Amino acid sequence: MSRWEPNARGRLELAAIELYSERGFEQTTVAEIAQRAGLTERTFFRYYADKREVLFSGSGELRDLLMTTLEAAAPATAPIDAVAAAFEAAAGVLQERRDYARTRSRVIAANVELQERELVKLASWSEALADGLRRRGVAEPGASLAAQAGTAVFRVAFARWISDRNRTDLAGLIQESLAELKAVAAGR
Amino acid sequence: MSRWEPNARGRLELAAIELYSERGFEQTTVAEIAQRAGLTERTFFRYYADKREVLFSGSGELRDLLMTTLEAAAPATAPIDAVAAAFEAAAGVLQERRDYARTRSRVIAANVELQERELVKLASWSEALADGLRRRGVAEPGASLAAQAGTAVFRVAFARWISDRNRTDLAGLIQESLAELKAVAAGR
Repeated sequence: MSRWEPNARGRLELAAIELYSERGFEQTTVAEIAQRAGLTERTFFRYYADKREVLFSGSGELRDLLMTTLEAAAPATAPIDAVAAAFEAAAGVLQERRDYARTRSRVIAANVELQERELVKLASWSEALADGLRRRGVAEPGASLAAQAGTAVFRVAFARWISDRNRTDLAGLIQESLAELKAVAAGR
Repeated sequence: MSRWEPNARGRLELAAIELYSERGFEQTTVAEIAQRAGLTERTFFRYYADKREVLFSGSGELRDLLMTTLEAAAPATAPIDAVAAAFEAAAGVLQERRDYARTRSRVIAANVELQERELVKLASWSEALADGLRRRGVAEPGASLAAQAGTAVFRVAFARWISDRNRTDLAGLIQESLAELKAVAAGR
């Protein structure tokens, strides 16, 4: 067993995103990530199944936060507003790591396999939110539609947050995107 | 060169879906598909890059139909309604092949890799529709939201069409799903 390394996970994540950004995801090896982090490959594989998963390690935590927030919404909250509130809570976490999020998005945009993994992540969030809405008593097809439309609201807001240097407030962008969805659905 | 084979594409597709349904996608080889279709592996690879693509060969045609219908919508049509009309046109094609669509959906639901490929297909349709809306003069973020919300309307309708034996009219289900999206977005 190697000795305990302080903040090994964070160091590996930082090293990985730097290398992916500098050289490209495909051109980076686990050995190089471990070396830059000053750790061993063995330590890498204690935290991550492969080099792709470094980019998705926060996904489970965000999903838990989405679900906790959804469950905590007042009973009378409209399904679409409960889903938007869940993404606004997630925005609070993402907001603290905007530089990381921007670099990560560029890395993902450059690789088809990573784009697919990102789609799978978003679809799994959407399915979890639909489950959560059904547990709140929302009937189908309303639960699935609110979850999927709410996820679209988040995706559009997130894309603007990543690409527009003048718009740094993700929660505000989610609120705007939700208002725009309501206008779009009303046929405007 | 092998000789010309009548309806080789259709025979390969039928053989593939039968075998995937009977044995599972992973357990089926291209050699077995070709054999059941009475054709050679070489003929298979003239039509399909691999055994996965057999299940997605109609995707390009449906996408073209979506885009043609979107472009043909009257200028005053609301973006979300133009997207829904595009999916209703696609429904006309899918409607003729309901048994195939049901079997295909079961095969896809049983395999993670195929589910990912299906998500990628839907995301590419959604991006094409957003492009089409922008060409019609719809501004962002409305174009992306209408395209993604419209795709959610289709997905929910399609899932009901596949799973509910009593609901056989896909275009009607799309209209109901669109009405439900409008209700959901209005906070009901």
